[in-house]
Amino acid sequence: MTDRQQRHQRAMQKLKAHVDDKVAAADQQRGLLLVFTGNGKGKTTAAWGTVTRALGYGYRVGVVQFIKGLWECGERERLAADANLEVSIMATGFTWETQNRESDTAACQAVWQDAARLLADPEVYLVVLDEITYMLKFGYLDIDTVRQAIADRPPEQSVIVTGRNAHRELIEMADTVSEMQDVKHAFDAGIQARRGIDY
Amino acid sequence: MTDRQQRHQRAMQKLKAHVDDKVAAADQQRGLLLVFTGNGKGKTTAAWGTVTRALGYGYRVGVVQFIKGLWECGERERLAADANLEVSIMATGFTWETQNRESDTAACQAVWQDAARLLADPEVYLVVLDEITYMLKFGYLDIDTVRQAIADRPPEQSVIVTGRNAHRELIEMADTVSEMQDVKHAFDAGIQARRGIDY
Repeated sequence: MTDRQQRHQRAMQKLKAHVDDKVAAADQQRGLLLVFTGNGKGKTTAAWGTVTRALGYGYRVGVVQFIKGLWECGERERLAADANLEVSIMATGFTWETQNRESDTAACQAVWQDAARLLADPEVYLVVLDEITYMLKFGYLDIDTVRQAIADRPPEQSVIVTGRNAHRELIEMADTVSEMQDVKHAFDAGIQARRGIDY
Repeated sequence: MTDRQQRHQRAMQKLKAHVDDKVAAADQQRGLLLVFTGNGKGKTTAAWGTVTRALGYGYRVGVVQFIKGLWECGERERLAADANLEVSIMATGFTWETQNRESDTAACQAVWQDAARLLADPEVYLVVLDEITYMLKFGYLDIDTVRQAIADRPPEQSVIVTGRNAHRELIEMADTVSEMQDVKHAFDAGIQARRGIDY
């Protein structure tokens, strides 16, 4: 073995020992609360990636979409035939399309009923509350209601919250928080959103 | 309409005008290069979310996994039956499991041949180079080869690169870059990776 190979092997052994230690220290097993926030691309996309993953094992999954209801959505089409997936969509689209506080609040409260039911169902392994952060920001939903429903969920159930500016209380109670930061975005360079990639 | 409702409507109209302007300014339509990097959760997951999305429209997709070959993977199971999806996996697992520079380089070069073929195929709408950043970092692949293959790809093809510490040249040529930042991670609090959620 050359010197370079030996150095590489030692570095990799050290890295492996570090990872092995961390794996050994992780001894709890329960449902997780994950928050995907920040202004960059990938929040909803990562949530759908996790949905695909959970469905791959045959788990039941519920997705509640609080904002993107009027958009085409390839993921939904691709997975729609899966009997283990339930998707609820808020009846109005983006709030700046409707611009009516009262009807948006009513639509939000209606779809929240689906979320609350899913969050109480021990048969549901994963619940995605997609773009719910905006509902809290606009005051269409109150944080106490959401926090309580998440806290009281079945212990084996995982929850993913997505959206910019996640509420401080959600960040605090979360197990895992990733902030997707917008380093650059094609849209800002004049490139159109692309079918099958962006939506 | 109350004062509060009017204020809300004005704010939403302003937001809508801003979004409409940006949509009007975006007039290019072509394949994108997206980079999901950073040390947080969601890079590979967002890539698989996009794969699901593209398959949902019936597009052909190629995924090349440079590192996670020995792990279970719910997404792959869920989507494996899709005739439009091709997945290539590097023969060795994590490099700190194998700890042999020579065999890892050979395995990497072998799976890169699949990547190069996919990147040259105009029938493939999306190519995912999952965790390729580590191959560049360890020197198993060289940046010029990768940059050239991405630059020469068919104009309608999109590419997603995932992994920590994405190479400066990949960041520069990318259309969209999201950095997933690890705000907190369940694993660090002693919670085990969860089937169907983390893997």
